[in-house]
Amino acid sequence: MPTVVYSLSNAAVIETPVRIKFLLQPTRREWVEQAIAHLDTILLDHSHCERKAAGVAINLMFRYPSHKPLVNALTDIAQEELDHFRQVNQQLERRHIALAPLSPPPYASRLNAAVRQQEPQRLLDRLLVCALIEARSHERLQLLAQHCPEGELAAFFASLVTSEARHYGTYWSLAYGSFGQEVVAERLQQLAALESEILSTPYPLPRMHS
Amino acid sequence: MPTVVYSLSNAAVIETPVRIKFLLQPTRREWVEQAIAHLDTILLDHSHCERKAAGVAINLMFRYPSHKPLVNALTDIAQEELDHFRQVNQQLERRHIALAPLSPPPYASRLNAAVRQQEPQRLLDRLLVCALIEARSHERLQLLAQHCPEGELAAFFASLVTSEARHYGTYWSLAYGSFGQEVVAERLQQLAALESEILSTPYPLPRMHS
Repeated sequence: MPTVVYSLSNAAVIETPVRIKFLLQPTRREWVEQAIAHLDTILLDHSHCERKAAGVAINLMFRYPSHKPLVNALTDIAQEELDHFRQVNQQLERRHIALAPLSPPPYASRLNAAVRQQEPQRLLDRLLVCALIEARSHERLQLLAQHCPEGELAAFFASLVTSEARHYGTYWSLAYGSFGQEVVAERLQQLAALESEILSTPYPLPRMHS
Repeated sequence: MPTVVYSLSNAAVIETPVRIKFLLQPTRREWVEQAIAHLDTILLDHSHCERKAAGVAINLMFRYPSHKPLVNALTDIAQEELDHFRQVNQQLERRHIALAPLSPPPYASRLNAAVRQQEPQRLLDRLLVCALIEARSHERLQLLAQHCPEGELAAFFASLVTSEARHYGTYWSLAYGSFGQEVVAERLQQLAALESEILSTPYPLPRMHS
């Protein structure tokens, strides 16, 4: 699949021009091959990702209960992630895949380890880490939608792509609203470099963020 | 308001017969008077309660990711709590009350301290603590709906009453499905006694669970 990555990259540039700022490196084609060869596991991991995304949104609201734009935006995101969680679980049920724990790849924990502990940097970093994770999810769902050989499942992945794009836009907008363009751009560059570096080492197990 | 508690109690027995098993003591009339005298604070605390309820449901799904009935039921509950959270925040906005942190009463932490740490008792206790908190919320929302002197706000409280009843029924059903009637009834009796004992000591600040 020699053109996988670049055709995706071009499509994303047209649809969501901000994306190029988020992901410094496109997904390796090896990830797509691994994911398509292990769709059941990817789907189960996807379920965990959606539940985690809802949990992260709610945790951020707990941490910043007075931040009205954040609270309003993340209420919507948490609900939408729960919608997706339900939908992924329905796909799992159709495929007779039982819900089960799944060891996570180091992706999110390594990104979260880069979050500075002092406020207000902590808020900035958490928002940008969320934005990067959502941006990568968006990219990979688009790849799955394009390359999944099962029509119904491909359509399902495609149905989630736009939401993920909206979510990373929301996290970026919240960061921008609180910290301004210059601060956001500088820190985003650093965290995006880390995000691409983490993914540059192939992870042996098939995961959404391996 | 000498008949507050008993009129509510009678109404609740008719509408939701299971309720009498959950709450061993009805809410003191002093709570109603305190709450009605501090509606702004009660509403702000209510907002925190709804967000916490969504967080608790998601945390339970994290802890028991393979428990399909639990995962399915709590996905719905978490979404509904987020709906309520949004609605309470809209009421706050209408009243020009800023979102702000609020110290919680000892109610939930004292109940959670009674949760046994070994499985499967831990799951049973967590489900029953959630059921009790939802049952008490249901009872108190009904009291607020009946006694709030502001028509719009009273109608708002009333609009949430049925959902809270459904939520405690769901938590109880999950416990019943996993542990059976005898085990659930015995432990519920113990935790309900604790719940009523906690509330028997008046808390100085107006809170949903003071």
